[in-house]
Amino acid sequence: MDVTEELEASVRRQVEAARQATVRLRTATTEEKNAVLEAMAAALEARAAEILEANVADVTAAEAAGTRGAFLDRLRLDPSRVRAMAGGLRDVARLPDPIGRLEEERTRPNGLKVARMRIPLGVVALIYESRPNVTADAAALCLKSGNAAVLRGGTEAVRSNRAIASILGDALEAVGLPRGAITLIEETDRAAILAVLRLTDLVDLAIPRGGEGLIRFVVENARVPVIQHFKGVCHVYVDAAADPDEALAIAINAKTQRPGVCNAMECLVVHRHHLTSGWFRRFAEAAAGKGVRLRCDPPALEACAGLENAEAASPSDYGAEFLDLVLAVKTVDALDEALDHVVRYGSHHTEAIVTEDAAAADRWLKEVDASCVVVNASTRFNDGGELGLGAEMGISTTKMHAYGPMGLEELTARKFVVMGEGQIRS
Amino acid sequence: MDVTEELEASVRRQVEAARQATVRLRTATTEEKNAVLEAMAAALEARAAEILEANVADVTAAEAAGTRGAFLDRLRLDPSRVRAMAGGLRDVARLPDPIGRLEEERTRPNGLKVARMRIPLGVVALIYESRPNVTADAAALCLKSGNAAVLRGGTEAVRSNRAIASILGDALEAVGLPRGAITLIEETDRAAILAVLRLTDLVDLAIPRGGEGLIRFVVENARVPVIQHFKGVCHVYVDAAADPDEALAIAINAKTQRPGVCNAMECLVVHRHHLTSGWFRRFAEAAAGKGVRLRCDPPALEACAGLENAEAASPSDYGAEFLDLVLAVKTVDALDEALDHVVRYGSHHTEAIVTEDAAAADRWLKEVDASCVVVNASTRFNDGGELGLGAEMGISTTKMHAYGPMGLEELTARKFVVMGEGQIRS
Repeated sequence: MDVTEELEASVRRQVEAARQATVRLRTATTEEKNAVLEAMAAALEARAAEILEANVADVTAAEAAGTRGAFLDRLRLDPSRVRAMAGGLRDVARLPDPIGRLEEERTRPNGLKVARMRIPLGVVALIYESRPNVTADAAALCLKSGNAAVLRGGTEAVRSNRAIASILGDALEAVGLPRGAITLIEETDRAAILAVLRLTDLVDLAIPRGGEGLIRFVVENARVPVIQHFKGVCHVYVDAAADPDEALAIAINAKTQRPGVCNAMECLVVHRHHLTSGWFRRFAEAAAGKGVRLRCDPPALEACAGLENAEAASPSDYGAEFLDLVLAVKTVDALDEALDHVVRYGSHHTEAIVTEDAAAADRWLKEVDASCVVVNASTRFNDGGELGLGAEMGISTTKMHAYGPMGLEELTARKFVVMGEGQIRS
Repeated sequence: MDVTEELEASVRRQVEAARQATVRLRTATTEEKNAVLEAMAAALEARAAEILEANVADVTAAEAAGTRGAFLDRLRLDPSRVRAMAGGLRDVARLPDPIGRLEEERTRPNGLKVARMRIPLGVVALIYESRPNVTADAAALCLKSGNAAVLRGGTEAVRSNRAIASILGDALEAVGLPRGAITLIEETDRAAILAVLRLTDLVDLAIPRGGEGLIRFVVENARVPVIQHFKGVCHVYVDAAADPDEALAIAINAKTQRPGVCNAMECLVVHRHHLTSGWFRRFAEAAAGKGVRLRCDPPALEACAGLENAEAASPSDYGAEFLDLVLAVKTVDALDEALDHVVRYGSHHTEAIVTEDAAAADRWLKEVDASCVVVNASTRFNDGGELGLGAEMGISTTKMHAYGPMGLEELTARKFVVMGEGQIRS
């Protein structure tokens, strides 16, 4: 893939406008930011017809190109989805503003007052796929955290994204904030993503959101810092000391409540005790009732004898992200074996244990290396809203800068602030 | 530069040992870590002769290769420097252990207990130049924060580094911790650095320490995350409302107390008021007494008439990191002009204002984008020890993950910890 000089110059010009906007955004007050978020929400509702008209054109073009199913569903907007988008902006307006907050204030022995002040990162580039609501969500989180957003959505949603970005831009201008604060990259070819990812002098952070293919493309081509949101291969380990009813409810919920998302369970790790106790059979039957197909190792398969939803697992089922009503099942003889399985096949996303044994729970919490470790609850709680961050920009599975859901605070940095009365170093 | 298959395989094997060590390090207790730090300190002192002998060989070889001056001084060890190295290890042992600490504990409306737990990053690679003490300092900070250290020091210090690393490794083994926790890369050619920087599956973070050339080499070639420590072009702005005596003491200290380091002042920004008040002339004379040569813009040069240490600045003097008794001087008519100068020529390192005007101080703290912003104190305070972090791994001038001095906490990440009683999502 080639970035022509013309494309590079055009993308640079657009991202420079975003960089320029950061100067004004850095000193925007909370009141200003909330006012513009409210104005944006009102404008999205008032001009919903424009958005829906553009969206019909996107959907029609996608259908003509043969697109069907879930992809088309993610692309499609309707009046209630536009209202939800506006509601999302109002939710962000209500979140506390992290910018300017002083943390870890202390006075040094020489009298220097030292603190750390939350500041914006600068220019945050979002590279995403079909869902047009990301345009509004990402813009709102960036704006509230004082960052300029550079947005590069999917080609198939370009008309919808332009309509949304244009409405948000008008709202910025109306309150006297620079339009560059929300910059939708004009070019729709993939080379434009490359051009953004190479602007090390202008872009502070790139966040890819979408399928694994897009994320790998961004990670492999970026020269700017990237926070990765790779796949979620989440496990639930049902320990020998698990409460059976609790384990059943958690495992069914983690798998079936919304199987297509990254914090759904993909593999049940079950202590052998539950194969003989009858618990696993009960689970397998309940799973069948929810339409879940099981890919079992030999001991588990034996315990499912006669059940039509169980079949033998192949090696590739472990570590797979099904995003569907399919579940791998692994039998273990001890906690250590469960921990080893998670190290080998987990994706550092969300790992849960069900147990009444406090020592086992403690080991799980301390030893499992994942963005969210859970005791006696569903994996589905690894979500910015559920964990109390208010809203999220995605879930980071790398440890640098952010690990887990990224809320407003994860879109900031901290600088040291030093106040003296003439102190010098000797 | 080419990484041969043989080199790649050898470096991978060494870094895999470090990765393997992280499993044990993750659960090492504070007591274990402190005990090994104390044992390391004692071993460095007891076996100082081995280190000094190796160091003599390094210094002799460097001299034979024509090396002189500051470079040779940084390379050279003596008994007191070895004692200082041991003392540094004991200092790290006394620092609070961030690992396992629970932060932001909260209970969600559904009863879930949520917190964030400090965890190690994993494998931290240090790429550094001549000073052999970095080997012990970096190993100690990594160990205390539960990380495995992969160390690649300068070729000229390889004998000293091997002696130090071997002593530290023996101490690890003596307490039952894996030797891989401190892994000194054997190969001394620069291609070995490249090989380390490409191990995205094994290395969590690379930190370059040294001259700008080394840092650029690492940043441009790394596929693993890098925290950059670029140059320090630090300004002191003497505002119209500065206390004259305080301003004089701070400016002289920032320039002359240790001119060769990154938090020394490189450019004095002076309000025009002080050219006519006589303050600047007084400063120029004091600077002359300390051997400082001034590179002045026309108004400042005029105010120095007759002083032998003042000459006209060339455009390249602004933004230059002299690391020497040389100072650029820029005259401004207002705070805004000073802020603009810092935006244009600063390096996001340390920026100080001297003023009695609270509004000017407040604007400086909020608007200047630097890892450390200072009011009425010397720039020399941007240092982990001085700011209360205890010790530092260098000073980050990028905002991702860490901005400013990196202490133990900056070598950690935080995972979400969720404790439930059977909660599921509806």
